[in-house]
Amino acid sequence: MNIAVLGGGSWGTAVARLLSNKGHDVKFYIRNNEIVEDINKNLENSKYLPGIKFKKITATNNIEFAIKDCKIIVLAVPTNAVRTVLKSIQNEVNEQQIIVNLAKGIEVDSLDRVSEISEEILPKNHFAVLSGPSHAEEVGLDIPTAVTVSSKDKETSKLVQDAFATEKFRVYTNPDLIGVEFGGALKNIIALAAGMSDGLGYGDNTKAALMTRGIYEMSKLGISLGANAHTFNGLAGIGDLIVTCTSMHSRNRRAGILIGEGLSSEEAAIEVGQVVEGVKTTKSAYELSKKHNVSMPITEKLYEVLYLNKDPRDAVMSLMTRDNKEEIEQIFFE
Amino acid sequence: MNIAVLGGGSWGTAVARLLSNKGHDVKFYIRNNEIVEDINKNLENSKYLPGIKFKKITATNNIEFAIKDCKIIVLAVPTNAVRTVLKSIQNEVNEQQIIVNLAKGIEVDSLDRVSEISEEILPKNHFAVLSGPSHAEEVGLDIPTAVTVSSKDKETSKLVQDAFATEKFRVYTNPDLIGVEFGGALKNIIALAAGMSDGLGYGDNTKAALMTRGIYEMSKLGISLGANAHTFNGLAGIGDLIVTCTSMHSRNRRAGILIGEGLSSEEAAIEVGQVVEGVKTTKSAYELSKKHNVSMPITEKLYEVLYLNKDPRDAVMSLMTRDNKEEIEQIFFE
Repeated sequence: MNIAVLGGGSWGTAVARLLSNKGHDVKFYIRNNEIVEDINKNLENSKYLPGIKFKKITATNNIEFAIKDCKIIVLAVPTNAVRTVLKSIQNEVNEQQIIVNLAKGIEVDSLDRVSEISEEILPKNHFAVLSGPSHAEEVGLDIPTAVTVSSKDKETSKLVQDAFATEKFRVYTNPDLIGVEFGGALKNIIALAAGMSDGLGYGDNTKAALMTRGIYEMSKLGISLGANAHTFNGLAGIGDLIVTCTSMHSRNRRAGILIGEGLSSEEAAIEVGQVVEGVKTTKSAYELSKKHNVSMPITEKLYEVLYLNKDPRDAVMSLMTRDNKEEIEQIFFE
Repeated sequence: MNIAVLGGGSWGTAVARLLSNKGHDVKFYIRNNEIVEDINKNLENSKYLPGIKFKKITATNNIEFAIKDCKIIVLAVPTNAVRTVLKSIQNEVNEQQIIVNLAKGIEVDSLDRVSEISEEILPKNHFAVLSGPSHAEEVGLDIPTAVTVSSKDKETSKLVQDAFATEKFRVYTNPDLIGVEFGGALKNIIALAAGMSDGLGYGDNTKAALMTRGIYEMSKLGISLGANAHTFNGLAGIGDLIVTCTSMHSRNRRAGILIGEGLSSEEAAIEVGQVVEGVKTTKSAYELSKKHNVSMPITEKLYEVLYLNKDPRDAVMSLMTRDNKEEIEQIFFE
């Protein structure tokens, strides 16, 4: 199958290699010409995934060439670049081509999911998202990994599942597109909170409780947004959260640790040196929880820490001293 | 409130201290007289929870004295000792006393849950179980912790919630007694599998996938046993699994690592030096899955490794190369 991968970061590189090793004819579009040359000459993206070798690959900085005649267009760019990239290829794309998004997150400000952006710009093309616990460094080393793929169209899900699955990369399908997309975005909030708990010097008990109760409140919000609660307990939800909370690669977790140690969210973002998506997602989720009348105590306290300068220790104390509750609310049985 | 805590291991000690610090009048029964003396003299159980001090406590090796006139009897003994302990107090217990079990696990051979043992021996007494991610060492240091309590009787759950909850120890209620009890036992299977993955040198992706898909198949079995799937995604399920899989204190995880490194399950048990509950629970769960016709691929492969000498690496490979699946089966929507 002819496949184009757009975006030469670590995850795009790992996926381009996976698909090429599977036997697909992969065109790998990267804007930066130095990286294109590195890959074509050395079969390696030494900037973003050093030490991992391609067997064969065609890297290019010509996006039209990359997508011409391919069946699948893989988007491996950050969420907030998706709109620009899709607009740039709008006139070259044909209706048979399938868009597969790898970015996790929702668009800042619009709160659009990537599928909504794609539907707006390429309304006739089938769309799928691939998500789950998948450090690029490990997929690049063929370490066993499992992910989930979701699309409104069942045939598209199955086609993408077949195109990506290998004996080291297991792909499940899940028809709950809303849940898979929100799961990937909302888990960053809990990664921030779990990092904050580590930064405050709390223990494994505290972090496990925050992760469990965090995914619980995300799934409550998910239900009110039309998602299926079980998706949040799957690979794109708790699975991805587990891998995030054990990794120092996660910007959200690192920012959380710094905030727990006493930095403001602005100082933490400067220290981390990159956008911390979870900070903006917390605001979005907080607003959605008010709009939909969903009780989300962890998100609310995190919002107060990030935006209203509440002391993180007081925030944890308020969470611990809420009224006694039932673990699972009625909404899950309806 | 007068409360008896029976069993002086680390968890019993942490809970006795928690209850005593809350202001309850706690009688702490311990069989070993040296430990009783250590506690009464030094306000510390230096053998099982060194460095953690009681403010006040009455330790005793007289079980009748311990339970006399108390409202709650806390069982802090291993699952397989519960039957013996309950029989030894059968004639002293009055019907108003509430049994609160802290042990996780199901009885070997009988496959009875502890609530079933209690109902058999003390049929007139209300019973509750307390479970969740709670390292004793952290609870002893007043590190924020959240757990869940379950009972068939709603009033009992609420009474126990009120008796145990502090600003550092948050207690939820969950009416799904079957789910809370099986969650605590079945999670040991997945802790073994996750340890095995670590022992084989696989990555964070692999472990997160095993944990997510592991809890998924436990909740499938749970449904067929009368539990609520959501309980497995709560504190007594995934929450406890998360804390177990990040801890070297877990015997199940350590045994899994050794098996992944090439030891047999017998050799691993000798090396760990204690009973590895997950090994027997795997056999029980495997048999239950056959009986109830529930597909549990991780449990099945682990069973083959533990009992049929299958190579762990081949087991992982079989899991990765199963037919392509949907992530969430229809059973979750019925």
